[in-house]
Amino acid sequence: MSAQLGTLYGIGVGPGDPELLTLKGARILASVPLVYVPVARAGAASYARSIVTQHLDPARQEVVELTFAMRGDAKSQAERWTENGRIIADQLLRGQDAAFVTEGDPMTFSTFTHIHRALAEHLPEAPVVVVPGVSSVQAAAAAALTPLGDADERFAVLPTVYEGDRLRNAIEDFDTVVLLKVASCIDATLNTLEELGVTENAVFVSRCGTAEQRIVRDVRSLRGEKLDYFSLLIVRGNITTGDS
Amino acid sequence: MSAQLGTLYGIGVGPGDPELLTLKGARILASVPLVYVPVARAGAASYARSIVTQHLDPARQEVVELTFAMRGDAKSQAERWTENGRIIADQLLRGQDAAFVTEGDPMTFSTFTHIHRALAEHLPEAPVVVVPGVSSVQAAAAAALTPLGDADERFAVLPTVYEGDRLRNAIEDFDTVVLLKVASCIDATLNTLEELGVTENAVFVSRCGTAEQRIVRDVRSLRGEKLDYFSLLIVRGNITTGDS
Repeated sequence: MSAQLGTLYGIGVGPGDPELLTLKGARILASVPLVYVPVARAGAASYARSIVTQHLDPARQEVVELTFAMRGDAKSQAERWTENGRIIADQLLRGQDAAFVTEGDPMTFSTFTHIHRALAEHLPEAPVVVVPGVSSVQAAAAAALTPLGDADERFAVLPTVYEGDRLRNAIEDFDTVVLLKVASCIDATLNTLEELGVTENAVFVSRCGTAEQRIVRDVRSLRGEKLDYFSLLIVRGNITTGDS
Repeated sequence: MSAQLGTLYGIGVGPGDPELLTLKGARILASVPLVYVPVARAGAASYARSIVTQHLDPARQEVVELTFAMRGDAKSQAERWTENGRIIADQLLRGQDAAFVTEGDPMTFSTFTHIHRALAEHLPEAPVVVVPGVSSVQAAAAAALTPLGDADERFAVLPTVYEGDRLRNAIEDFDTVVLLKVASCIDATLNTLEELGVTENAVFVSRCGTAEQRIVRDVRSLRGEKLDYFSLLIVRGNITTGDS
């Protein structure tokens, strides 16, 4: 093992608008000799890479794609992460730094969680620095001008699974509830919002920060529609303070 | 009224590290003729201003303090916000843009929510653009290398009030629960974590991103301590996926 290990920087590059990268993310990206970009399969485009492309200099830096299996059984996914961890460990063992870029924030529903865990399997002592980034939830709230929380309010993020009771309980217990990846279950979700009388308090945002960004305040109009995968609902539920 | 109203930019400047400002925030801050900075009382220091001071040019830009009453009765606080809204409306009516800076993210437990509402009272048609920023919760998770959520996990943020049952329910229902402003009730909170057997899953972070940043993983050691106001706990509760 080399005397001095390289550092892995996990950089959140924000939700899509290249200008929502942080100054720190831009500085580190310009300084490391190697940048890892996640791709869903070999040859596929990397969304995170597209966001930071202006900060990369192929003449000076190596850009390495790390494939992760979005589909497939758990075993093949786990093997893929383990392999990615080994690739990064080898780089750090050479005493070289590297950055891994991920859309949004590295600690919030991000592939970086898996990369970090996989690296630790091989090289638990590796120095890791995480540079936080703006999440898609924050960008959606900003675009819709809808607060996620204020003062003593309670705020929850629910991903994907909205079986009736859990969604109902969350809306009753929290002031703001964000429902990620709502495209696959929009009709059932709208039914629950109607039952609870909070449909008027909901706003729909998809592809936030891109040219295709869409904000819909009359969410009833979404019923039956085929929606983009990158869609979310912000629901103001049990409002305890303020008048918004 | 002038033909063309100015735009108010609500800029999240991140949790404290000046480098966690976004490129977009930096560009807009350098371009507007006037920047509003929040202060808790006349003459007090503005934390948000201190974060962006290197991006401001007093020779070219006006920096205006807006006082908000952190204490006092609800009526005097409301009057203060209304007055701040009028000040900003006057600027926009002159056809001039302005930025309001706020620590963290403007849509997440931020003074910007009040500014926006107060401006709308005076000038509902005012153009408002929100530039999202890194929140203190994200910065704490990054510093502690603790994920806020992954895959199908559920994530909640609770501010201030941790009466037994609500905290207990949240920890049972969510994979990750962040408790803001935990300083005033650390002992009672630790009692609840012990009862639920999740003390080992908690990490304490205070003054994240500043020179005084403190991360404590043995949270039992905090019992009885006088803690900084800017303290939070990240609790990994009802873990349903992964092994972290």
